[in-house]
Amino acid sequence: MIKEPIIQRIDLTIPSASLEDTASDWERVQRAVCTLLPDRPLDPTLAALREVGPALRHGDWQVRVTLAETGNTWRAVSIKPGFDTSPLYGLAIDLGTTTIVADLVNVETGQVIVSQLAYNAQRDFGIDVTSRMIYAEKPDGLAMLRHAAVKTINELIAELCTKARLEHRFIQAAVVAGNTVMQHLLLGLDPSSIRREPYVPAATAFPVLDAVAVGIDISEGAPLYLFPAASGYVGGDVTAGLLATRIAEEEPLSILIDIGTNGETVLGNREFLLACSGSAGSAFEGCGLEWGMAAQPGAIDRLRFEDGRLIFHTVGDEAPRGICGSGLIEALGAFLQSGLINRSGKVNLDLPGAHSRAGHPEIVLVPADETAVERDITLRQGDIENLIRDKAALYAGSRILLANAGLTFDDVERIFIAGNFGQSLEIEQAVRIGLLPDIPRERIKFIGNSSLNGARDALLSCVAWQRAQEIASSITCLELTVEPRYFEEYTAALFLPHTDQTLFPSLK
Amino acid sequence: MIKEPIIQRIDLTIPSASLEDTASDWERVQRAVCTLLPDRPLDPTLAALREVGPALRHGDWQVRVTLAETGNTWRAVSIKPGFDTSPLYGLAIDLGTTTIVADLVNVETGQVIVSQLAYNAQRDFGIDVTSRMIYAEKPDGLAMLRHAAVKTINELIAELCTKARLEHRFIQAAVVAGNTVMQHLLLGLDPSSIRREPYVPAATAFPVLDAVAVGIDISEGAPLYLFPAASGYVGGDVTAGLLATRIAEEEPLSILIDIGTNGETVLGNREFLLACSGSAGSAFEGCGLEWGMAAQPGAIDRLRFEDGRLIFHTVGDEAPRGICGSGLIEALGAFLQSGLINRSGKVNLDLPGAHSRAGHPEIVLVPADETAVERDITLRQGDIENLIRDKAALYAGSRILLANAGLTFDDVERIFIAGNFGQSLEIEQAVRIGLLPDIPRERIKFIGNSSLNGARDALLSCVAWQRAQEIASSITCLELTVEPRYFEEYTAALFLPHTDQTLFPSLK
Repeated sequence: MIKEPIIQRIDLTIPSASLEDTASDWERVQRAVCTLLPDRPLDPTLAALREVGPALRHGDWQVRVTLAETGNTWRAVSIKPGFDTSPLYGLAIDLGTTTIVADLVNVETGQVIVSQLAYNAQRDFGIDVTSRMIYAEKPDGLAMLRHAAVKTINELIAELCTKARLEHRFIQAAVVAGNTVMQHLLLGLDPSSIRREPYVPAATAFPVLDAVAVGIDISEGAPLYLFPAASGYVGGDVTAGLLATRIAEEEPLSILIDIGTNGETVLGNREFLLACSGSAGSAFEGCGLEWGMAAQPGAIDRLRFEDGRLIFHTVGDEAPRGICGSGLIEALGAFLQSGLINRSGKVNLDLPGAHSRAGHPEIVLVPADETAVERDITLRQGDIENLIRDKAALYAGSRILLANAGLTFDDVERIFIAGNFGQSLEIEQAVRIGLLPDIPRERIKFIGNSSLNGARDALLSCVAWQRAQEIASSITCLELTVEPRYFEEYTAALFLPHTDQTLFPSLK
Repeated sequence: MIKEPIIQRIDLTIPSASLEDTASDWERVQRAVCTLLPDRPLDPTLAALREVGPALRHGDWQVRVTLAETGNTWRAVSIKPGFDTSPLYGLAIDLGTTTIVADLVNVETGQVIVSQLAYNAQRDFGIDVTSRMIYAEKPDGLAMLRHAAVKTINELIAELCTKARLEHRFIQAAVVAGNTVMQHLLLGLDPSSIRREPYVPAATAFPVLDAVAVGIDISEGAPLYLFPAASGYVGGDVTAGLLATRIAEEEPLSILIDIGTNGETVLGNREFLLACSGSAGSAFEGCGLEWGMAAQPGAIDRLRFEDGRLIFHTVGDEAPRGICGSGLIEALGAFLQSGLINRSGKVNLDLPGAHSRAGHPEIVLVPADETAVERDITLRQGDIENLIRDKAALYAGSRILLANAGLTFDDVERIFIAGNFGQSLEIEQAVRIGLLPDIPRERIKFIGNSSLNGARDALLSCVAWQRAQEIASSITCLELTVEPRYFEEYTAALFLPHTDQTLFPSLK
């Protein structure tokens, strides 16, 4: 793809006004832009109209015009004097149910200046998309959720700006990828129809909005791009993931599994895209687990059994505060290997490290005195069951997609696992617990936050952004709740790795 | 012109969503609209996206969609349930330097529900466009002027809504016609270049904006249309006046004189349009006169000499509070007839009604005990000189336009005088003082607020709105300050009716 960012600057020398040519400042700029870019009409934002006069005169009729891609037109976002040498910044935002991550990007160099994660303040109103949708139906619920998302994003922006020593007004675009419910809540769109058959959202494609009008505290007139979704449960984050992985551009049959709060899976290649969502995966994001957390400093991101004891690694090598997705997958694998849990996930209280507290079995990951929180960091029996349910849902989702396409895991050439993980992960353990199928390990790739990666790709390429629209509209969505074999597949997968061990021949 | 208002409603029955057709709410509406109106793409406002889901479900898949004209696209402004029977309201606004007038219009019937006038709160920062432009260059000056205009408009809207017993959210569009400086200040555009050679504004044409984003308190997502201007001194109010008078559509050679604070004059017909602005006319709007006021209740709008005394009429037949434009023209004529002033405008202190106060000659229009203000309402020598200067400037402007076109007043088939007058006016007096040329009186028409009329025309017809764009770009502007003969013409007209009495043969 040609690397023309979604916002671009052009430097123009404008013929100065005279009594012989008294066209307005904006008309002069418009003429100059349209000579260079005659393909589409040019519309000004109010912010650009406010800037044009002073920019022309302070810049001695040399100006830098920032243009935004909007599909059918160019939008003049800002007009600065020609000597303005400030970099052109944009935001790529992964608007997650649990966490929101923002990259501050120099869109002209492609460099990520700084990246920042925060928990979505909407968590106070419900842990997953369903509980948020229920909350949105309360009086003022939608407004409160909207404000919580906007507040979290603005706090992230403030931190990014502080770290980069930057004023907000230098950020001239934002690209947001989130699941359909999160995107609805950010915009204040009623999501209530998404949770009722036939699960239809208010919108799947969005016009290029005005970031400030949505409440996002960046430059006046800056465009806000929201990734197009395929359905109420296959959202903009999936579209962004497909964009980032290039699954929809290439020949190899691939699966993308996004272990986010929503647990979406897509099967396909450049010929077709088949997707489902299982409302699964949130346990692997740490949701609902006492010690679950994002892959932030202090999160256990690696864990293995060695010489009868658990060896762990944390993000930033800090004293542990909790455990993130990659740590959870490795923990389950290590427990199974060591016999601390059996194939049903039951904790074996006879082994050291396992004990019962208030009648609930649990396994100690790190004793209190080695943590930053001065309490034992543990996985409880209930946590383990949550994780098994989620891995079963994810595995069953892939199986249903494959069955619908008349394919099997053997046909799959690449599996991309996206999620809020640490730097790396022992793929063997993900297969051992049956989260991933027993295929050649080199076909499996953990790719981190593919939603964020896709948002960044779109920010840096208007061709990529246009491609995202095509990808979203070419996805066929399966509704698992009405798939007759789904429940059967799910139940069969509630075992480590699976009730049908012939599906995992290499694990014998 | 076809009477399709600038915002229109269409009633749609939308196929309900099902598991077989899970297109989003907005996509379904879009499909239905695009089937009916396939000529242009349809873009939603954020407000419409927020409404679409509830509207479809409350309306049982029957909706009323309000669409706004934007030139290249349709903009979906709001989506209501099909049973919504509230009228569709819009605002036509004349954004004057001295006064702002707003009509609340039912755009489907064309009926003006109520009309309201208020003094522009920007008056606190300067009486005319030049002083406002100077103020705009002070720190925060532009923001203060912008807020003052927005505040005045919002107060007008509040009064209109109270009178019509209406909520603001039922007003779904606003069309504003004002001079170039006023439109700049409303939007917060820097007007400083307008007052410096070559007198170029930031913009003459404006995109269809979001009224709420500009600060105007009407329905979320409602479009704001600003009339296109021809130059820094020939503004959207003139374009609106041309639209209202149909000068640019018809064959007869016409002159439009807008006796507003800015005093613009246009000569032309459907073949050509030549315009100038004299920064003249504000005295006839009452500006700078102790007792000047708008044509509001209590304003003396008619005045004549009968049996040795002045007979007056006021707007609303209330006790007098001041004098408006039509009253001022008639007063000058009556003074000249009665000898209270001579042809230079000098007050004759020997006649009853004239006296000197603190060394300044003045003529009493209404003695204190007959007024609502318990003071003599007078015209002072200085007021009279102001009026003569303004009438001279207006007359000289027309002469220069005619000379540039190689024409004379004899070629002019219609003169339209627009201004903030009462119901009617003695045309003879306007000729007597030389404000108007000595042509057959039936060719002269006082048309009231042509800027407001044009704004209303555009609100009620998108064809008229499109026509306004063409009109504005076809106007040729003359800059009087660089016209060599202007000063000469002006000086010659500083007499009642004129130094060259052969120009006024009928007055002998």
